[in-house]
Amino acid sequence: MTGVSALRFELLASDRSTAARVGRVITPHGSFETPAYFPVATRATVRGLLPEQLRDAGVQGLLVNSYHLALRPGAALVQRLGGLHRFMHWERPIVTDSGGFQLFSLAHLVHIGDDGVQFRSHLDGALIEWTPERAIAIQEQLGADIIMCLDHCPPANVDFATAEAAVVRTTRWARRCRQVHRRPDQALFGIIQGGVYPELRERSARELVELDFPGYAVGGLSVGEGHEQMIAILSVTAPLLPADRPRYLMGVGMPRDVLRAVACGIDFFDCVLPTRNGRNGMAFTGQGTVRIRNAEHRDSAEPLDPDCPCPTCRYYSRAYLRHLFLAEEMLGPILLSLHNLYYFNRLMDRIRAAIRAGRYAELLTEELE
Amino acid sequence: MTGVSALRFELLASDRSTAARVGRVITPHGSFETPAYFPVATRATVRGLLPEQLRDAGVQGLLVNSYHLALRPGAALVQRLGGLHRFMHWERPIVTDSGGFQLFSLAHLVHIGDDGVQFRSHLDGALIEWTPERAIAIQEQLGADIIMCLDHCPPANVDFATAEAAVVRTTRWARRCRQVHRRPDQALFGIIQGGVYPELRERSARELVELDFPGYAVGGLSVGEGHEQMIAILSVTAPLLPADRPRYLMGVGMPRDVLRAVACGIDFFDCVLPTRNGRNGMAFTGQGTVRIRNAEHRDSAEPLDPDCPCPTCRYYSRAYLRHLFLAEEMLGPILLSLHNLYYFNRLMDRIRAAIRAGRYAELLTEELE
Repeated sequence: MTGVSALRFELLASDRSTAARVGRVITPHGSFETPAYFPVATRATVRGLLPEQLRDAGVQGLLVNSYHLALRPGAALVQRLGGLHRFMHWERPIVTDSGGFQLFSLAHLVHIGDDGVQFRSHLDGALIEWTPERAIAIQEQLGADIIMCLDHCPPANVDFATAEAAVVRTTRWARRCRQVHRRPDQALFGIIQGGVYPELRERSARELVELDFPGYAVGGLSVGEGHEQMIAILSVTAPLLPADRPRYLMGVGMPRDVLRAVACGIDFFDCVLPTRNGRNGMAFTGQGTVRIRNAEHRDSAEPLDPDCPCPTCRYYSRAYLRHLFLAEEMLGPILLSLHNLYYFNRLMDRIRAAIRAGRYAELLTEELE
Repeated sequence: MTGVSALRFELLASDRSTAARVGRVITPHGSFETPAYFPVATRATVRGLLPEQLRDAGVQGLLVNSYHLALRPGAALVQRLGGLHRFMHWERPIVTDSGGFQLFSLAHLVHIGDDGVQFRSHLDGALIEWTPERAIAIQEQLGADIIMCLDHCPPANVDFATAEAAVVRTTRWARRCRQVHRRPDQALFGIIQGGVYPELRERSARELVELDFPGYAVGGLSVGEGHEQMIAILSVTAPLLPADRPRYLMGVGMPRDVLRAVACGIDFFDCVLPTRNGRNGMAFTGQGTVRIRNAEHRDSAEPLDPDCPCPTCRYYSRAYLRHLFLAEEMLGPILLSLHNLYYFNRLMDRIRAAIRAGRYAELLTEELE
């Protein structure tokens, strides 16, 4: 059934001394170069930014949350309006998640069973059932290019038995997702679970690879296990995934997470960090993070980052940005989110260039010291 | 002392059957064609919009509030950072008001005297004194192209004696403003008061015209007196102002207010309406106003206005815009504010074209029926 996937993956370059690689993922809405970092458009919008601003910042694709859209405005409505790309006016690739992560973090769970999950909406308390079949139906209605199997994502550091049960369930659910998925223009990815237990990660990877997905995600990380443990798990998990399929690390992360995950062979990421931290007044720069509300920036005519080509750094002083945040003006979150997206996309540019040049280990040393 | 003003006004066309006229106001930061409508950048930002988006929407100039900026971040800080244009990255004309309107509406007044006003900041309760001299000093620090005399702006429909006292005080304050104003790159306008009393409007206009300002504003309108009374007052006030100076109607207004004020000979306007109403989910369209939260738009694939060339109408359905508002996403207020600015600027385009064609009376009939 691989033939039903419209997704193609081209491996373009591999680093000499790490597992890092450069590739291209080709979807019905254009391609993206990997390693890539997708911002999150939770409710079919990256908060405060227009699609043209995202494009200018180098954003290649977006992650949209099925859970949030299914609750409001509803996936059927999005479908009637032509699907996500038209609904939100984003013509490049879109990934939707399966709702699994939100179910286990946001929703008020009523029952978790092998068949699926019952929960109460965090919006209005309505009782909702979420099954593998429904997760696929919703994602088919939304119409993203890459969609995800429903997985069971337990919290960090659960015991072995709990993590094992989640792996068993995740494989069963993946098989059911695989069976009901129909849209040939969407690529359905499997999600590896297994917590912090290498043998469970190995089992999860083996079982999902047998199901032959066009791509694989590593889930259940960045949920509280810490940076070192995350990298330890990735370094045993990523090599188990087929080299000719893209590997997606969900919900990650900080620059150092990304740098080291790429060295493990991860191809793309999604994370709210650039925009959420931007909204909260934190900017990533080549000289470290800047908390723009701090009094030290009160009189500063300097840009956030003198080496950054983004509109925020070209046109505005730290003093102005601080003023916007203190006055609670929307433009503050907008300008810092925009800057942070430039920052992460420029980091990905450097990562791809270093891999192509066969000097990724040097980049790691430079960036992580 | 007219020679100190860098402002020039060119009268380009006059309507045949009304007092409407087309002109050009030339400032050190470029010119704007009149009749013009300036959105309000209360705290040195038009909420949620970048300067390039304002330019694309046809915005020719901005009004910025001295009162708000003086309280936070402080006018001296803006001056140290190069003045308002650089601070907020707006290269076109800027008007600042004198703070008078906010003093009499927002602030907790402690004392109003002939010398000035004492009030407590609405931000932190600090006791602040505001005099004509201070209003000018603050506006010189901010550095707008057009600045305003401090005026006494009483509420609508005060009795004759109160309105008269405000006129007397406004003239005295205008004289003091005129005496201390020094920056040759700023044009200082006088503000006509007089409430709803034609004889007081006449007196205020006569006294201020004697002081020979490079432009005149009509203040104290749109404060609750109603549309018909506002137009009645304008129709007696505007003809008293010199034809070779621009006439500015402050804080107005709705399309019908603008259309009829132009017929009285008003040249430019500022108002929060396009952006404030946009933030609240109200869009102006050629088919009337649209309240985007209404359930009738839930499934609508239609744009706000099929005849509007703005990005909001080109790319987004009413259903998507409604979704953004119900989800309290920033992009909703952004897209409706942007649309409304296009709407008002296109209205001003039609107004200028009709005046040039000598058919302004016909436009009035078409638009107001």
